[in-house]
Amino acid sequence: MSDARALGERAEAMIGALAGITAEPGKITRLYLSPEHRRAAALVGEWMRQAGLSVRMDAAGTMHGLLAPGLSGPRANRRLLVGSHIDTVVDAGRYDGNLGVVAGIVAVEELAARGIRLPFGLEILAFGDEEGVRYPKTLVSSSTIAGSLDPTVLDMVDATGMPIRGALAEFGGDPDHLAAEAYLRGDVIGYLEVHIEQGPVLESQGEALGVVSAIASQGRYRLTARGEAGHAGTVPMALRHDALAALAEVVLAVEEVARKGVRDSLVATVGEITARPGAVNVIPGEAMMSLDVRAANDAARVAAVEEIRRRVRDTGVRRGVVIGMETMIEKPVAAAAPWLKRAIAGGIEAVTGRKPREIMSGAGHDGQAMINLTDIGMIFVRCRAGISHNPLESVMIEDMGLAIEALVGTIVRIAEGGRA
Amino acid sequence: MSDARALGERAEAMIGALAGITAEPGKITRLYLSPEHRRAAALVGEWMRQAGLSVRMDAAGTMHGLLAPGLSGPRANRRLLVGSHIDTVVDAGRYDGNLGVVAGIVAVEELAARGIRLPFGLEILAFGDEEGVRYPKTLVSSSTIAGSLDPTVLDMVDATGMPIRGALAEFGGDPDHLAAEAYLRGDVIGYLEVHIEQGPVLESQGEALGVVSAIASQGRYRLTARGEAGHAGTVPMALRHDALAALAEVVLAVEEVARKGVRDSLVATVGEITARPGAVNVIPGEAMMSLDVRAANDAARVAAVEEIRRRVRDTGVRRGVVIGMETMIEKPVAAAAPWLKRAIAGGIEAVTGRKPREIMSGAGHDGQAMINLTDIGMIFVRCRAGISHNPLESVMIEDMGLAIEALVGTIVRIAEGGRA
Repeated sequence: MSDARALGERAEAMIGALAGITAEPGKITRLYLSPEHRRAAALVGEWMRQAGLSVRMDAAGTMHGLLAPGLSGPRANRRLLVGSHIDTVVDAGRYDGNLGVVAGIVAVEELAARGIRLPFGLEILAFGDEEGVRYPKTLVSSSTIAGSLDPTVLDMVDATGMPIRGALAEFGGDPDHLAAEAYLRGDVIGYLEVHIEQGPVLESQGEALGVVSAIASQGRYRLTARGEAGHAGTVPMALRHDALAALAEVVLAVEEVARKGVRDSLVATVGEITARPGAVNVIPGEAMMSLDVRAANDAARVAAVEEIRRRVRDTGVRRGVVIGMETMIEKPVAAAAPWLKRAIAGGIEAVTGRKPREIMSGAGHDGQAMINLTDIGMIFVRCRAGISHNPLESVMIEDMGLAIEALVGTIVRIAEGGRA
Repeated sequence: MSDARALGERAEAMIGALAGITAEPGKITRLYLSPEHRRAAALVGEWMRQAGLSVRMDAAGTMHGLLAPGLSGPRANRRLLVGSHIDTVVDAGRYDGNLGVVAGIVAVEELAARGIRLPFGLEILAFGDEEGVRYPKTLVSSSTIAGSLDPTVLDMVDATGMPIRGALAEFGGDPDHLAAEAYLRGDVIGYLEVHIEQGPVLESQGEALGVVSAIASQGRYRLTARGEAGHAGTVPMALRHDALAALAEVVLAVEEVARKGVRDSLVATVGEITARPGAVNVIPGEAMMSLDVRAANDAARVAAVEEIRRRVRDTGVRRGVVIGMETMIEKPVAAAAPWLKRAIAGGIEAVTGRKPREIMSGAGHDGQAMINLTDIGMIFVRCRAGISHNPLESVMIEDMGLAIEALVGTIVRIAEGGRA
């Protein structure tokens, strides 16, 4: 049995090799269906083969590596899925997505090294578009397997006008046969993913690994305030209807509402704001802001948004400013299955010696698509200062090793007693 | 004696003729030293001549129309100045500046019609650059007469790279002999200007005219907040250092501080704001805002800025966000002379039947330069909804007539009993 350090070093070497495959020298940039994505997929396929897996690329460009159990009969196709993505944002870190794919492959190697045979298939998946950078729609590859892909998405174009359909054909995929890639529910046991936390909680608690409770319930909104523009020097304070001051009040209300929702992992963020006309000496007659609200459950998110709406209304009435709040996206929570959370917690406790905490994933993941097919579970790995989507993204080698050991332990637990 | 309606119609006809002189058909755009400025100056010169004034254009492009008293000896050059500007912003209203020049000319006509002879000269001035649109520096023409022009200003260039010096030579001015245009203090009695309020106070009080107490003390500042960027979904509220939330708190503090300064006509405005990186799903790591603070006296402005600085510091410390506050401009108050305010108030009361209120001018005016030479006084005229710098700028004809009558009355009062 390898120790965590050795497993971590193996993973780090593979992650380093993937990091070298980029569109921009000195940075990591690997967009969906790009030549870099193709090269990374080929390398992942090679590693899968070396680990003894049967490898294929599917019609959406996803790499599959299957360790078949060698059974026949109605359960011959039963399999546990383990995956993540190999696309990146522009000027990305090394670990986001890539770690989950590498962890799956190293786990397969480790199972073999330990002589463990599973009573079901184990399939490692390397998805291609979790980040949504090249195209506005994300999760095309995991949605394809989950059977939940909206085919109109294929006509979306990138900045150069290239539709997904054309890029996929060039890549070597098959845009006309995506529907045939959908897995049967009865064939799938569950979906596991190892991913860096992309947040500061594990580090601040001094813990290497955590169990994801859910991928957050999320809503995105756009607020527009219409007041009255005027000369900054000539309109007395009492006669103003300042659209920006109204939104400043909303920014603080959003923060206050979110702070009350710690128990539900509620977070709310105003990331964009604009004042118009936007001159130093003009009272803003219009202002706009974005709002992003996430929570561990839909009820908490909906209640928070309702309270924010109420506060927005109060602010508008009190200030004589008309504030509209438009819904852009609302995505329900993707909760991890309790039986998978138990298996993961057991796998983590066996390697760290302590019961892991549950953490909501505020970020989106392929599990949001896979939950349409099967139960999902995720292992979070501590990362430095919560930094992600940034070259400064950093994970300790030992922590990666612990994550792989925990993944192996989780798979073994599922084989021994779970729903397999 | 003409009635106010007839005087207003005379003024409106002249203002309409000036409004037709523009760089953009269908809009009013007349920048300093442009061909349109030249044509407007020629038309003003023609009206001045018709009113019996001796006309000249000075080295800075200002039109002068002098009604000389026909005296000799040491007081032969003594004169009262009445003026405003004929340049405009881009897509301007008709009245800003132009009304003051026209009012001066019509007042001269009215003095003649009433057979009034003054014991001093009366000079009407049409300045060319109050708006500061073409060049970053304003008040070149009034500063020239006031003897306070900084000659390095002549090297400033417009968007096409043309320096003031070159534009002035093309216009027919003389950039090398501006210093010789400076008036002697002993020759000047005072400076009067009629101007639209550009604010909502007179309209909201149902008054046609007001006495300007002062041109505001003004400061402009730029605030920059540095917190910590992070993923909108993964950083718990308690661990955030949100630069925008910090500035939202400052926006409301600015408003609160300004509201307490009603007695000092304190106003404070945040007209510009930006959050960086400025994405819906990223906690702002940096944010910037402008701040404009004005008051009827310097002490009130300085005290308000100090209180804002204190609140900024508190916010920064409490939130773990570093907020810098940089001073861009600080201009002292230009207070109207009490004896001129009295003469103006008398002139207004004689035509409206009520004691006028004093109003701070939050906007800048040529008086800010002229105060370096002589005492200043201003008459404010009600405008619709406080709108200015906008094609919707609107003034009632009757109100313009009342303003001209009040200006005539003010001049007569100065002749009779003031410091003349």
